[in-house]
Amino acid sequence: MPETNETPASSIPPGLYVVGIGPGGLDYMCGRAVEVLKSVEVVAGYTTYIDLIRPLISGKEVVRTGMMKEVDRVAAAIDAALAGKTCALVSSGDPGIYAMAGLVFDMCRERDIALSEPGGAGLFVEVVPGIPALAAGAALLGAPLTHDFAAVSLSDLLTPWETIEKRIEAAAAADFVLAIYNPRSKKRDWQLGRAVEILLAHRSPETPVGVVTAAMRAEQSVAITTLGAFDPASADMQTTVFIGNSHTFRYGDRMVTPRGYARKYDMVRS
Amino acid sequence: MPETNETPASSIPPGLYVVGIGPGGLDYMCGRAVEVLKSVEVVAGYTTYIDLIRPLISGKEVVRTGMMKEVDRVAAAIDAALAGKTCALVSSGDPGIYAMAGLVFDMCRERDIALSEPGGAGLFVEVVPGIPALAAGAALLGAPLTHDFAAVSLSDLLTPWETIEKRIEAAAAADFVLAIYNPRSKKRDWQLGRAVEILLAHRSPETPVGVVTAAMRAEQSVAITTLGAFDPASADMQTTVFIGNSHTFRYGDRMVTPRGYARKYDMVRS
Repeated sequence: MPETNETPASSIPPGLYVVGIGPGGLDYMCGRAVEVLKSVEVVAGYTTYIDLIRPLISGKEVVRTGMMKEVDRVAAAIDAALAGKTCALVSSGDPGIYAMAGLVFDMCRERDIALSEPGGAGLFVEVVPGIPALAAGAALLGAPLTHDFAAVSLSDLLTPWETIEKRIEAAAAADFVLAIYNPRSKKRDWQLGRAVEILLAHRSPETPVGVVTAAMRAEQSVAITTLGAFDPASADMQTTVFIGNSHTFRYGDRMVTPRGYARKYDMVRS
Repeated sequence: MPETNETPASSIPPGLYVVGIGPGGLDYMCGRAVEVLKSVEVVAGYTTYIDLIRPLISGKEVVRTGMMKEVDRVAAAIDAALAGKTCALVSSGDPGIYAMAGLVFDMCRERDIALSEPGGAGLFVEVVPGIPALAAGAALLGAPLTHDFAAVSLSDLLTPWETIEKRIEAAAAADFVLAIYNPRSKKRDWQLGRAVEILLAHRSPETPVGVVTAAMRAEQSVAITTLGAFDPASADMQTTVFIGNSHTFRYGDRMVTPRGYARKYDMVRS
């Protein structure tokens, strides 16, 4: 992957590019994201993500803000694009899954900013997808998501806890695999334990649970345990927790949810 | 992106690489997938996917099979890797979401093939994640998945329809956004209409619905409609259908599910 910025800024039209950088290192970013990051004039993002893409954006104007300044950061990115610049707003994982894409369009609506095609009278916005944390974590675990699954965030900062609990209950009862985002932070220390309680009312304590922290980064950790043995304190804000469905099994050091091919094709199961 | 295979095959250890090529063109494949495809000796995959990655794999041994030969294809890939070769098994999107990763591990268990680290006595398997169809489609639509969502496949070939219907009902009642895979084929022509009926019992007919077919490919199509106006016949096997939750809105030509930041930060909503 190139380490320098040699693509002229004019290779993409002015506008706001909402870019998913994938789970971690540059190896898991798609070609379109690399092209956009090399081409833009301005990059906005949380400090940790800016550091991950540093080799691609040397010499560019950078709008760095801390985790709690999301609205300010998106506003600055929109303003840069409205001023005729090419601006990338970066998110880890996919920008549309618990990340910045929703806020961009929500804010455009609030400010009555018309959206347009490239070169049009309004704001051109392109969302560049990335590998989401749920796909990166699943790859490291084996194949926990190879059947129907639900993604649920345990952050009750912006969503009432009753809504979150209702969703966990519904997903547990309907035998969805669960991918749990934002499972635990210093201030939110009881929600994950409560989620496990709800799940144990519907699933065996032997249900496999995968715990992936900082996938594809230097500090990556991957563990498989069971619903009965899972310790919520093993998760933090960088963790995605995968709860198996009633068919999920462990094979060696992998966690696998079958689609059922083996049964269909009459292979013998031990 | 390089068009030729110049990386020596020895740059990765022998084993089976289950590779997600993303939604379509090479621009949406991650760097690790490109590296692996350029390095392996054997490539196995469905004909359509092999054609999409043709520039990366010229001169390699290719195991091509039609859509219904999935078990044969996976068996051939496992056998090649067991014989000491480097073999890539390719899936579109992410290999762990309704794709090949689950079948690989399921078949290893059936055949009692031990898994190992690179260079170990058993089979080394690496899953290389890709941008899933749900993330690619969401990027084209705007931001429909920026809050809790459920992925459900309507294919009842390997899953009883009662299970699928129960999941749709649960996701609808708990206000999950839905990403519907395998919504319709020539032989399965009523399931999507039934899913819409179930959803209409819980959601307004004005609920936004996004319909994305062949994302990031030449024949791509993207449309936004409503749950009341949606015509199931507009979907086929290459389509992902996105059903909004009770907060999802349409702004211009985009479909957006807010996380709630605007409310939290006291911005005025019209």
